Amino acid sequence: MKPGTASRKRIKHLATAMNREVTLLVGDSSSCVDIEYATGFRPVDAVVFIKRAREKILVVPIMEAGRAAAEAPSCVVETPATLNLSGERRRRLSEWVLALLKREKISRVTVPPTFPHGVAVRLQQSGVKVRVSAEPLFPERAVKRPTEIENIRGAQQAAVIAMRVAMRRIAEAEVDASGCLVWKKHRLTADDIRRLINKTLVEHDCFARDIIVAPGLQAADPHARGEGPLRAGEAIVIDIFPQSLETGYWGDLTRTVVKGVPSAPVRAMYQAVRAAQEAALALLRPGVSGDTVHQAVEREFDRRGFRTDRGKSANAGFIHSTGHGVGLAIHEAPSLGPGGGRLRAGNVVTVEPGLYYPGIGGVRIEDTVVITQKGWSYLAPCEKRLELGACPLLPTVLRKP
Amino acid sequence: MKPGTASRKRIKHLATAMNREVTLLVGDSSSCVDIEYATGFRPVDAVVFIKRAREKILVVPIMEAGRAAAEAPSCVVETPATLNLSGERRRRLSEWVLALLKREKISRVTVPPTFPHGVAVRLQQSGVKVRVSAEPLFPERAVKRPTEIENIRGAQQAAVIAMRVAMRRIAEAEVDASGCLVWKKHRLTADDIRRLINKTLVEHDCFARDIIVAPGLQAADPHARGEGPLRAGEAIVIDIFPQSLETGYWGDLTRTVVKGVPSAPVRAMYQAVRAAQEAALALLRPGVSGDTVHQAVEREFDRRGFRTDRGKSANAGFIHSTGHGVGLAIHEAPSLGPGGGRLRAGNVVTVEPGLYYPGIGGVRIEDTVVITQKGWSYLAPCEKRLELGACPLLPTVLRKP
Repeated sequence: MKPGTASRKRIKHLATAMNREVTLLVGDSSSCVDIEYATGFRPVDAVVFIKRAREKILVVPIMEAGRAAAEAPSCVVETPATLNLSGERRRRLSEWVLALLKREKISRVTVPPTFPHGVAVRLQQSGVKVRVSAEPLFPERAVKRPTEIENIRGAQQAAVIAMRVAMRRIAEAEVDASGCLVWKKHRLTADDIRRLINKTLVEHDCFARDIIVAPGLQAADPHARGEGPLRAGEAIVIDIFPQSLETGYWGDLTRTVVKGVPSAPVRAMYQAVRAAQEAALALLRPGVSGDTVHQAVEREFDRRGFRTDRGKSANAGFIHSTGHGVGLAIHEAPSLGPGGGRLRAGNVVTVEPGLYYPGIGGVRIEDTVVITQKGWSYLAPCEKRLELGACPLLPTVLRKP
Repeated sequence: MKPGTASRKRIKHLATAMNREVTLLVGDSSSCVDIEYATGFRPVDAVVFIKRAREKILVVPIMEAGRAAAEAPSCVVETPATLNLSGERRRRLSEWVLALLKREKISRVTVPPTFPHGVAVRLQQSGVKVRVSAEPLFPERAVKRPTEIENIRGAQQAAVIAMRVAMRRIAEAEVDASGCLVWKKHRLTADDIRRLINKTLVEHDCFARDIIVAPGLQAADPHARGEGPLRAGEAIVIDIFPQSLETGYWGDLTRTVVKGVPSAPVRAMYQAVRAAQEAALALLRPGVSGDTVHQAVEREFDRRGFRTDRGKSANAGFIHSTGHGVGLAIHEAPSLGPGGGRLRAGNVVTVEPGLYYPGIGGVRIEDTVVITQKGWSYLAPCEKRLELGACPLLPTVLRKP
């Protein structure tokens, strides 16, 4: 054997070991969705997950071992006990990681940017190299499998039903002398509609934490939750993004409605937003970039004279992106916004242009759609209608052709 | 002026600057509760927060500036625009942090262990020293202010009402020939009770994501969500931990009930758990350690012959701690468990002993209480009752005195 062969072999072996990237995740179902995606197990408390080639290992609290084994059949399930940890070390997640890496002879790991810094520092102190991945660790999450599409459709259908219940309540409400909506002799508030929506969602095993029911001037801030009495003639932005309690997948739906007759600027904004959504939808198909779709929306608003001002003090016009991916997270890849990349069949995205003007209010229309081989389709269609019933206190003559 | 004075002054100045610790947090309302605690602002999307002596600065998305200014009056509110960021840098949280630290001439920060490693690495690359705090950054969170206690009480009252609705449904259910509970000719499942609980919670502006309704053998795993039909004679563990949608504070309540007559081992377990909870409650007052309380529960179970086995394969007995703090997080300080420190007036803790035996089932009783100057009090009392109505299919004669 020539000198050097052994060391060349050794170098080759080392190179192979180094190239065999180990992905390390820690967290629970809300702080690290990738764990649920990669394993099928929804962790209530924080757990540890590593992936090396096709091998997957989960470390879960002793109490969770049974459920993890059942829900994550593709994983080896360990606990602090099977890693021979005792006492104080059994309670520290960083010790779980260290014990696992030591046993598996792993000295370098790749983690997501959200990885807890405290654990990273502890690993580095023990000689583990921690690399932050600049790219998503599970980019395949952006392309949904058929069961995932059905899960999102389930949440979206619940959103549509809840939206219809809310629209019907507003349509059927009476209007009192001061222009407030009244239901069973009680003034309807944003909270009433929010409660009605959540009761409907719960009946369909979904829930939405931050439902927006923003009336009138409040809706000029697209994130305003909305509060207080609802009034005839005012645009009300209703944004429902429920998560299925069963599957963990989300839906996302927004409508803007007026009880009675909208003001001229609101009507013009609504027509522009409808047209902008149509322009965006018309472009959707594999290969088109999210950036292109977003620019089409910007052009449509510009063409109609709706300008955007995002200065230090002003914040008006079309001040958010056109859409975002939806899945196990409510905001995920791909983006329909500046810099958004090419769409692929199986992407699920929202298409939600909106206009916001302080002193006037806000209008947003949002649907969640799946990109198909030839174009796109709604996950659950929902009526788009600005005016919900005539308001006896406002002139209805304008509505005649 | 003697030589050296200037440099001594400079050293003193530097030392002061170094001692002036800057706390840095990033995250949203679910990933970083401390931000909401410190500011009053509940961030829907990720934000940046720094605290230096009495000075507090929030950096929020442009869309959130108005809401942040209103909800966090003690903070200076900045946005990527006011920090003069543009283009790609405006979209990156780490750039927000860097711009803020540069403007404020801050070169070292203290972060919590959960701080995102990706941001920490970016800061270090720019020369910022990042220290991970070993201690909680807001230890005062464990001692609740009166308004916080009322907020937790609100969530706990909703839990009590929902628990009573669930108990009543089980008590009023009929039992079919196979021993299954029946309501309006429909077999009652764990999901039916969960839905009923959540509908009740939503009516009270609360919501619980992971309600446990675990019947029979399923409850031997204290984290099992529970599924399938409910049967007479089986212990059903119902654990409700709702969050108030309005205040963000949590409550936590567990009861174990049987429709009809429980088995002898379940009855004995229930008596032991009741006695253990009484033993724990009897000790609660300022100055007593959480460790002491937990040991009292362990002793009570030991005394009654209920042993705990947390080996590599077995997981039976009293396999969790006695309790945890409740506030803006469902699990927070202080702990009633091994190593738990001294209690203080204003602590809000759960007291939740439980027993779990594969092949038999589980029993847990949990209340949330506030530590007072002299002892403790329930935030919202709820009946403790194992047997809910007689079951005609099981011998009721055993129940006679």
